[in-house]
Amino acid sequence: MASYTAPLREISFVLNEVLKAGNLAKSVPNFADATPEIIQEMIETAAKFVEQELFPLNASGDAEGCTRHPDNTVSVPKGFTEAFKAYAANGFVGISNPTEYGGLGMPYLLWKVVEEMVCSGNVAFALYPGLTGGCFEALHASASEEIKQTYLHKLSSGEWTGTMLLTEPQAGSDLAAVKTKAIPQADGSYKLEGGKIFITSGEHGMADNIIHFALARIEGAPAGVKGLSTFVVPKFLVKADGSLGERNAIYCSAIEHKMGIHGSVTSVMNLDGATGWIVGNPNEGIQNMFVMMNLARIMVGFQGLGQMELATQNALRYALERKQPKPIIDFPDVRRMILQMKAMTEGARVLAYETALYVDYAHHHPDPAVREEANDWVELNTPLVKSTCTDGAVDLGSMAIQVYGGHGFIVEHGIEQILRDSKILCLYEGTNGIQAMDLVRRKLFLNGGRSVTRFFSLLNKAAAEAAPEFAFIAGPLKQALADLESATQWIYETFRSKPEDASFGCCDYQRAFALTYLGYNWLRMAQAASAQSDELFKAGKLATAHYFAAKLLPQVGGLCATVKGGAEDFMALPAASL
Amino acid sequence: MASYTAPLREISFVLNEVLKAGNLAKSVPNFADATPEIIQEMIETAAKFVEQELFPLNASGDAEGCTRHPDNTVSVPKGFTEAFKAYAANGFVGISNPTEYGGLGMPYLLWKVVEEMVCSGNVAFALYPGLTGGCFEALHASASEEIKQTYLHKLSSGEWTGTMLLTEPQAGSDLAAVKTKAIPQADGSYKLEGGKIFITSGEHGMADNIIHFALARIEGAPAGVKGLSTFVVPKFLVKADGSLGERNAIYCSAIEHKMGIHGSVTSVMNLDGATGWIVGNPNEGIQNMFVMMNLARIMVGFQGLGQMELATQNALRYALERKQPKPIIDFPDVRRMILQMKAMTEGARVLAYETALYVDYAHHHPDPAVREEANDWVELNTPLVKSTCTDGAVDLGSMAIQVYGGHGFIVEHGIEQILRDSKILCLYEGTNGIQAMDLVRRKLFLNGGRSVTRFFSLLNKAAAEAAPEFAFIAGPLKQALADLESATQWIYETFRSKPEDASFGCCDYQRAFALTYLGYNWLRMAQAASAQSDELFKAGKLATAHYFAAKLLPQVGGLCATVKGGAEDFMALPAASL
Repeated sequence: MASYTAPLREISFVLNEVLKAGNLAKSVPNFADATPEIIQEMIETAAKFVEQELFPLNASGDAEGCTRHPDNTVSVPKGFTEAFKAYAANGFVGISNPTEYGGLGMPYLLWKVVEEMVCSGNVAFALYPGLTGGCFEALHASASEEIKQTYLHKLSSGEWTGTMLLTEPQAGSDLAAVKTKAIPQADGSYKLEGGKIFITSGEHGMADNIIHFALARIEGAPAGVKGLSTFVVPKFLVKADGSLGERNAIYCSAIEHKMGIHGSVTSVMNLDGATGWIVGNPNEGIQNMFVMMNLARIMVGFQGLGQMELATQNALRYALERKQPKPIIDFPDVRRMILQMKAMTEGARVLAYETALYVDYAHHHPDPAVREEANDWVELNTPLVKSTCTDGAVDLGSMAIQVYGGHGFIVEHGIEQILRDSKILCLYEGTNGIQAMDLVRRKLFLNGGRSVTRFFSLLNKAAAEAAPEFAFIAGPLKQALADLESATQWIYETFRSKPEDASFGCCDYQRAFALTYLGYNWLRMAQAASAQSDELFKAGKLATAHYFAAKLLPQVGGLCATVKGGAEDFMALPAASL
Repeated sequence: MASYTAPLREISFVLNEVLKAGNLAKSVPNFADATPEIIQEMIETAAKFVEQELFPLNASGDAEGCTRHPDNTVSVPKGFTEAFKAYAANGFVGISNPTEYGGLGMPYLLWKVVEEMVCSGNVAFALYPGLTGGCFEALHASASEEIKQTYLHKLSSGEWTGTMLLTEPQAGSDLAAVKTKAIPQADGSYKLEGGKIFITSGEHGMADNIIHFALARIEGAPAGVKGLSTFVVPKFLVKADGSLGERNAIYCSAIEHKMGIHGSVTSVMNLDGATGWIVGNPNEGIQNMFVMMNLARIMVGFQGLGQMELATQNALRYALERKQPKPIIDFPDVRRMILQMKAMTEGARVLAYETALYVDYAHHHPDPAVREEANDWVELNTPLVKSTCTDGAVDLGSMAIQVYGGHGFIVEHGIEQILRDSKILCLYEGTNGIQAMDLVRRKLFLNGGRSVTRFFSLLNKAAAEAAPEFAFIAGPLKQALADLESATQWIYETFRSKPEDASFGCCDYQRAFALTYLGYNWLRMAQAASAQSDELFKAGKLATAHYFAAKLLPQVGGLCATVKGGAEDFMALPAASL
């Protein structure tokens, strides 16, 4: 059977030794109370909750799934509602929401650390609070104070949950094709008509109300993305006193049967003249949506990180226990897989946590220059976190099965679920190909390439300044940086004249970028581990850093060469010849 | 919804234009009647059967799965029994079995071409005739004439089906730990006692009898693999006149719930003093088993190939149809995925078909020198076919989902099933890590490295002699060969003194080897395609060859560098530090 133990030692190492996250409490007045001790205590509380309450529902939730009933209601797996209420009662739903809107006002970083654990323990469950947080962020960023006062407190407390209503059958990656119509009413509200698909947590009975953040087109608005607006559409209308009024005309007409995340309901939602209120200004819906979407992409990255950790720790445990006749971890190919899994998971954790830390600095640091720089990092890192952790979850989910051998294919061992649950992560909130396009077409060019220039400058400096004992990784990192800089230069030179050539290798470029970043993370982890007194911990970290340096960083060169090969004549080839 | 159309144009191209398989009928007297015309006719018959009878049961079989009843019987999904009887009536079960044992006496290659299609259409179904063929081969190679006469005709006709009873809970990759006991009886038979797991087709009602080929240890035999013997254990004892007698004491005590191939029953089998007869000599069970196992590995490769084709053709169709707003195949990253899928599938098909062709030459060519050389190829290619086509199936199954976007995660589209069905292929009949060990530790050294020397000599010659118009691929192929030869030399030099160092990168070496082989296949396909008059076909083939040359062959260098990096100190690291 699969098991889960929160990797508290790892989490603390990354937060405190590698990222020095304690500086957050010192430099950001908002977070003065969020000392490392407080943070640690909350992490331990969450860890226990995940281990004892959420992970036990992971396999049963997968087996049971969600059920839609003829009256348009949906039931979630046994135990989910109680677990959600307990989770909310702990304050976890609004953990980093501002206190003035009912949250605990803790750092975003803490939310994400908790989210990693929740997503290891039960990624299907994690979507209920996850989307609620996303809806909160969208309303918090763009809605009127009246709307905020109406909805945000209950979204923080978890009494209500949230969704995002974006996708339509004809409008997946291409949101310009959104057809849902918003008809202005005399009282300033709108009537929404249309159909949405793939709506996570669109209907369930876990909370008293469900708040939908919807993308729609006001009648008469321009075609394309510039005619889209955002609306808040509650399942139950909210009266002036905050109590629930009549049922709104938004219904779940079907739910999807999916490869994985069976415990998470994925709904088809019909808006039959549902009442909604505009969020932000008309025709600025895409910008409003992207506030949430960018953070949602980081969230999905953490979902992937959680699944990477689950795959890695189970494969490791099995490799230590299973004898054929010696423990299989002593077979070179199995040990290679375990090192690969650790190298990717632990390297990705630093990337993900650092990105979350930058979100806190970007939103709350008193110095605008620090905020600006932190925001640059968030922008650059978002596609990297999303794609690296989710591709990683699928790769490692598959590799964990491989470590288990035939047993990994059997449902009761709980390992194949990782691969099934993880695959969606590469798809939603923008496929990983979309992330790569975002990196190549947008992030490289943002603010004159400022983020990327800073990235190279910081990493080159770290590699150059590394003490000789870290040359084993600083050397390969320098080479990777040189290769990546050259590929980046090639993209800059190629993009204006031949965008398809520059884009053809975008996924390889994204992977090269992420591996380089992870190489930098491993350099920092090796440095921080060297100062540790726990010899076993130090030995494991240094060996994994060696593995990353020898086996993974050298892949950057090959990937960059492929990128620079461009699209040749592939795009001109008649599609019918394929 | 997923669809399947047999790739008849591709199959014919590989058989006739690339591999010149028509020579088989000319040079092997056994196959004088197996002219390209006859072969083509049988392929078309099988294609129609798969498209019309088997593929329609693929999704329903996945949804329904198998059920075990309290009386130890198992029911298979609706339609499977009728389809199997029709399949058998067409002669497909014994298509390449010798006519003296009830087969059609056609080439093994034809069997495998049919198997590719069956495994695209319904890989769960394919296991019933597939294992029957494996059991036939094992008995045909090692059993006494009396046993052959008792069982082989009905295994050819499909009136009976077969299994292999190898794995036990403690004995997966390590068969030395097999405990099932065989107690000699006065009449020359044995009573078998023990428990087997992961038995494909171990119990069902599709055929009148089930013939188990079992690995067990005769009482008093040595420990380890050298004390294992093989036995034939029928579900129903067979009377002297060939009619069925009493039920044998072998029962299905449970079936597994699996990630995929739900239509295939995977049984736990209890042998409660079941009567069996020895196959071959005592304590030579491992050798007997490997006759079957080697061919079973090729079979699994074809299962993978079938799934690669299914993934590729569905992704292509969707990419042509789906508009966001232009057909998504016109987005660089989607086109890149389609080219990647075609490059791997079509390249792997040549590898798989060529290996099957060599099996025919190895078994039937009149010239012993040709037989010996063909056998060398089969030995070398077996791990390559098994691992390349099955890793490929998982990679492409995942990529097909990626092309479909969120829709790929939804069960009703029939795409996620590919990934679920394919993952087992990387595990059974020796995990792909075991294949890599077989390549590195055994195949490289076999007959003084004769197979590998011949491989390099043939491929170097092909690259050197390629006309200038094929330099685009001959050049990268030469480079890949140089890199692979250098890694091979390193393994030879390292293996004796540091076997773990040599083995650590075995999976990377295996992939490098396979990519080089596929590069050679693409050179040959490019050459053969150039002579075609169908301009669209030619353009597609040449573009895909360009893709392989530019994007895949260059990976060989990086993989070989990793291989030569060895294991550093990773194997000496205390397991507790991981």
